[in-house]
Amino acid sequence: MTPNKFKKLLTRTHFSKDLKNLQIGSDVRVAGWIEDFRDIGKLGFLTLRDVTGAIQSVLLGPNLEKAKTIPRQSSILVVGTIKPTKSREFEVEVSVKEIHVYSEAIHSLPIDPTGRIESNLDNRLDSRALDLRNPKISKIFVLRSQLLKIIRDFFILRGFIEVNTPKIIGSASEGGSNLFSFDYFKRKGYLAQSPQLYKEQLILSLDRVFEIAPFFRAENSHTVRHLNEFLSVDIEAAYLDYFDIMDIIEELVKLTLKHTIESGYHADLPNSESKSFLDVVSSPFPRLSYEQCLKDLGEMDEKVNFGDDLLDSSLRKLGEKYNSFYFITNWPLDLKPFYIHENDENPLLSKSFDLQYGYLELVSGGTRQHDVSKLKHRLQDQGLSIDSFTNHLKTFEWGMPPHSGCGLGFDRLMMVLSNLPNIREVVLYPRDTSRISP
Amino acid sequence: MTPNKFKKLLTRTHFSKDLKNLQIGSDVRVAGWIEDFRDIGKLGFLTLRDVTGAIQSVLLGPNLEKAKTIPRQSSILVVGTIKPTKSREFEVEVSVKEIHVYSEAIHSLPIDPTGRIESNLDNRLDSRALDLRNPKISKIFVLRSQLLKIIRDFFILRGFIEVNTPKIIGSASEGGSNLFSFDYFKRKGYLAQSPQLYKEQLILSLDRVFEIAPFFRAENSHTVRHLNEFLSVDIEAAYLDYFDIMDIIEELVKLTLKHTIESGYHADLPNSESKSFLDVVSSPFPRLSYEQCLKDLGEMDEKVNFGDDLLDSSLRKLGEKYNSFYFITNWPLDLKPFYIHENDENPLLSKSFDLQYGYLELVSGGTRQHDVSKLKHRLQDQGLSIDSFTNHLKTFEWGMPPHSGCGLGFDRLMMVLSNLPNIREVVLYPRDTSRISP
Repeated sequence: MTPNKFKKLLTRTHFSKDLKNLQIGSDVRVAGWIEDFRDIGKLGFLTLRDVTGAIQSVLLGPNLEKAKTIPRQSSILVVGTIKPTKSREFEVEVSVKEIHVYSEAIHSLPIDPTGRIESNLDNRLDSRALDLRNPKISKIFVLRSQLLKIIRDFFILRGFIEVNTPKIIGSASEGGSNLFSFDYFKRKGYLAQSPQLYKEQLILSLDRVFEIAPFFRAENSHTVRHLNEFLSVDIEAAYLDYFDIMDIIEELVKLTLKHTIESGYHADLPNSESKSFLDVVSSPFPRLSYEQCLKDLGEMDEKVNFGDDLLDSSLRKLGEKYNSFYFITNWPLDLKPFYIHENDENPLLSKSFDLQYGYLELVSGGTRQHDVSKLKHRLQDQGLSIDSFTNHLKTFEWGMPPHSGCGLGFDRLMMVLSNLPNIREVVLYPRDTSRISP
Repeated sequence: MTPNKFKKLLTRTHFSKDLKNLQIGSDVRVAGWIEDFRDIGKLGFLTLRDVTGAIQSVLLGPNLEKAKTIPRQSSILVVGTIKPTKSREFEVEVSVKEIHVYSEAIHSLPIDPTGRIESNLDNRLDSRALDLRNPKISKIFVLRSQLLKIIRDFFILRGFIEVNTPKIIGSASEGGSNLFSFDYFKRKGYLAQSPQLYKEQLILSLDRVFEIAPFFRAENSHTVRHLNEFLSVDIEAAYLDYFDIMDIIEELVKLTLKHTIESGYHADLPNSESKSFLDVVSSPFPRLSYEQCLKDLGEMDEKVNFGDDLLDSSLRKLGEKYNSFYFITNWPLDLKPFYIHENDENPLLSKSFDLQYGYLELVSGGTRQHDVSKLKHRLQDQGLSIDSFTNHLKTFEWGMPPHSGCGLGFDRLMMVLSNLPNIREVVLYPRDTSRISP
């Protein structure tokens, strides 16, 4: 079979970003959309953009006449020759020989993807595909894609095996109120809110596992940092304790920060104008015990009693004192889920940590309880039914090694790295209590 | 904060696979489970296994006495010294100085993870965590993890951006009968069965996207090749046609085959004993048009009328004739979803392809219809409601470029590569009409 006419028409030779490396006089075929067009008489300048950047193309004669008739944002192919340019914005320009329209944009458009006219977030999300033609928006998702690769490679290098745990689960074991439920072939099914039980089971044999996957929470809250579907980075490792996991996570978060700097994404973090990204990368994240936090807060006239959770207001104060990223360790056991190990030195405390960025919780982790009789007691203490954990508990009778792990909210990390105040900015099609489409 | 006693106890120095590279006399601490133990009088041999392999440890005196009391499959730490060995199975052995038990296995065990006593698949899946202590089983999932990385890196190298599309969707647009539905904050939500519409929308701006994610089908069928939750590899690319996508997929599948050979996983493919894996990698996959298939089948006394789908029996015959992997192209348009482009040469046909492995469909793809008025006609022809596609169709009015893509069933590819007859073998916690836990 030979490629058909359609195929030949499609053949582009370069992305926008590649043109500056070509020799003057090279022939190119570049595809993208018309971002801008200026007609200055005998000459026209058309800015063609693709996801890798923009190029200036120069039109004369019939091509100029044709360009006048094509609406902005239409999808086109430009055939031409690389020429030097006088423009300050571009390194070269394309002298156009031929212009082909694949698909015309029908105006008026719901939002302005050049960003000149600002739209509110709701309107942008309603027209997300068009919103992404704004390079400021698309680069968030290019960064997101790069960081996912960096995170996976980081864990693979350290002997973690990627696993896929089920998103459909048969029991609402960790407390059912936050789970979406549905009919699953005459039984009740639920959407998983984390891979917690599965990843613990898997380290029995696979030793170190990670998963990056969507999870679901039926929580009826509407904030800038919660979504009902979110991407979670989960790890679990045998023979490591929570200090090891903190070391791993600190190294990982610094790596993502470093990449964000190097990719030129952002120069500064919010709430820490005095601290540059590079400072954060080069100094250790403070590790405060819960009890130290209470002490610090007391000194800041914020009284918190032992056993109380730390509210946003308290976390914001700690974030101001300790700057950007900090760990809170050794939380009261009662504040933590049943699977968290008690602390050896004080059984009222736990082997746990959260990684905070100011008030924002990014990571939660700890050493797990691997003694099955203690696990059963903890379940009872928390008013959970041992019977509904039968499948899980039996795996702890097969020689379950000690283990630790954590979950990182990837969308929240993206909020921090891209310095954006709303989690919806860094998710392509966010899901909240009032948004389920597009 | 200083590492506590627990941490010190945990410190292992090596994985099993690393020991053969150490000098004789090196001190090691290796953690894992007791796979086997032989007491031959004054001497005992304990086989300790972790996910990377097994080691032989030799016990004397009090350590031998202690080892006699530890049930098999218990999780232990062995402290010892590397010694030369007379064993044919191992390259070195560990002379044990100290043995520590983390967690005892409680016998009897539901299955035998050494594989000496075979268990049926249902029992194995009921005790999946223990099943994975069988190295024949765990290596399937190590391969799976490696292939996921290979596939992602393949697409990233070719300019594809990884995206995360929503799994919760607001309308059952592609025909509702195969979707799980649930209450989503007083509205109806559905579980996505593919990222099809989202990935098409996204190439408007992101040009080339890929996603590897779980999707869901509420299909009430019980076969060896269907699951109700499955991992799908999806790509979509602007300015490419379906021949380009076939080239990309052929290269990718050959890469996964090559890795499977090189990792020593399997020497032969099923149903093609005469063809080694290497032959498959070095020759092009046959590309048969649907019409050629009808002709071939006619010659094999299997009459199929134009417009009829190809049944398993027909596909098996084609698989035997053309060996292992083959494409079927240019299916009748009526057999394909509304978003597939009609063929330029014959409007009754489509720009589509399936990649088959014998009777098993691994990939389905094609050039998409990007003309919004034609799309609307196709929806009407298929009895679908244009209104329920409003959000999707409007993106085609914003200068939608021509584009193509496909979806690959990753679990099915794993079946083929690992030469296993049931898709449940290659999924950690499979979900079918009768299985929702563990």
